[in-house]
Amino acid sequence: MLAIDFGGTKIALATAAVGSSRPSATVRLDTLGTAGAAQAVRRTFDAARELVDSPAAVGVSTFGVVRGDRIRLAPNVPGWDGLALPALLRERFGDAPVAIDNDVNAGAAAELRWGALRGVDVGLYVNVGTGLAAALVAGGRVVPGAHGAAGEIAYLRGHGDGYFADGHAPLEDVVSGMALSRRGSALLGRPVTAAALFSLRGEEGVAALLDETVDALARVVANLCVTLDPSTVVLGGGLMRAAEHIVPRVAAVLERAVPFPPELALAHFVDDAPLLGAMALALENVR
Amino acid sequence: MLAIDFGGTKIALATAAVGSSRPSATVRLDTLGTAGAAQAVRRTFDAARELVDSPAAVGVSTFGVVRGDRIRLAPNVPGWDGLALPALLRERFGDAPVAIDNDVNAGAAAELRWGALRGVDVGLYVNVGTGLAAALVAGGRVVPGAHGAAGEIAYLRGHGDGYFADGHAPLEDVVSGMALSRRGSALLGRPVTAAALFSLRGEEGVAALLDETVDALARVVANLCVTLDPSTVVLGGGLMRAAEHIVPRVAAVLERAVPFPPELALAHFVDDAPLLGAMALALENVR
Repeated sequence: MLAIDFGGTKIALATAAVGSSRPSATVRLDTLGTAGAAQAVRRTFDAARELVDSPAAVGVSTFGVVRGDRIRLAPNVPGWDGLALPALLRERFGDAPVAIDNDVNAGAAAELRWGALRGVDVGLYVNVGTGLAAALVAGGRVVPGAHGAAGEIAYLRGHGDGYFADGHAPLEDVVSGMALSRRGSALLGRPVTAAALFSLRGEEGVAALLDETVDALARVVANLCVTLDPSTVVLGGGLMRAAEHIVPRVAAVLERAVPFPPELALAHFVDDAPLLGAMALALENVR
Repeated sequence: MLAIDFGGTKIALATAAVGSSRPSATVRLDTLGTAGAAQAVRRTFDAARELVDSPAAVGVSTFGVVRGDRIRLAPNVPGWDGLALPALLRERFGDAPVAIDNDVNAGAAAELRWGALRGVDVGLYVNVGTGLAAALVAGGRVVPGAHGAAGEIAYLRGHGDGYFADGHAPLEDVVSGMALSRRGSALLGRPVTAAALFSLRGEEGVAALLDETVDALARVVANLCVTLDPSTVVLGGGLMRAAEHIVPRVAAVLERAVPFPPELALAHFVDDAPLLGAMALALENVR
């Protein structure tokens, strides 16, 4: 079984025995995004050939969203938006069943199979990493949406916010690692990562920035819970390294804002979530 | 086949031949809500007995939400919140299969079977009547949520809004027939219905009130579409009698705010949506 995670900066590949939740071999490549999609796919396929000759099943996670036979909403690597990745995978892997989904839906699939969403019928997975996205779970499965774009909450708008059509991702512009890093760096006059900001709370303006961000996250998670009525909400992504500063505030808002407050849990998987998700997707085809 | 719609002011009953979308007989009762739940249920069962002796299947729509064996979020009729309606129905109708859901989910079921959601896999039904609620459709079926409360969008919050736990329904306080009537009456100094307001646009402050309301509705529908990624959105409820003032503005915001804008359609059923929904629910058990 072969799992591939196409990320904007790194590509990860792993093989595993069918039924195992642990990779037996893992390879990582740089995406070299500015050099375009074609070379990244070609090098990935070369690396796959070295790992396993003819996998029993292939699971693939990618940034962007998977709309039918094309990748969409993936502007950062030239050629990725519009890429016919499913066809390229079928061509390369022949008869092996290939399953593909976006990285956040894949992360949710990993949590459903091995992690914090095991046994959950209606659930929500919210990933705050560099960007912001969610996966909706209903009937024990990830809801893809009509165009593969369910859970693309980066584009949620508040009063007066900009529009997707004009290039805006209003909520992601406030609630994401990228936004925190950008705003924190501007505030402090030196480059700072989102994670580091949480240990700089004493510096002027930092506490207000963090509070605004966490409050906005709490409000959107609560609104998603009002909308979907999940039994369990899982928070994942790199920003959850600062979970102790985030989870209590989110939990407090859920208790007050949601008619039937769900369980709030941390994701079991952080760094490898999309790769493990690709493994989970592959397994869905070898039951 | 018997359909019952329990509403806060009226209760409707209808019988129909299995497979028919048209009621063969309909009866309406006043709920007499202030007199409590027990008398309303008893009179409904008496009326049902006169209509049909032993129905092949029973479908029931109710205000509030159906959480397992109890009705919840139904504060307006004493005794309805917490009512063990499913058990009362099983007791009354014995062996006949009984299906029960809230009025808005029932309305969506009617649209799925006979109306604007026919053949839709992922869809959204938004009902703006006296109150405000939605139904989420995934896999061609209404998603109930973990506690029967999916789509209870009356409780969505913006920045600074009040909390459900404190008795607030922040979005419904702005976007609903009730809210428009209340705010319009205060503005004009005389009682006015929401529908009437749309023909009083020339009076001072009315245009601003209507625009604020419709803009808020458009923003929330767009956010729901970003979240769920439906192929079709159906707007229903009494406020859609003013559809020509509402639909074009909502459509314009969907086009700009949603990555893959859905089709926007009006509900086929307005006044009888919950009763027809109860019929649709009953039919789900007699396939």
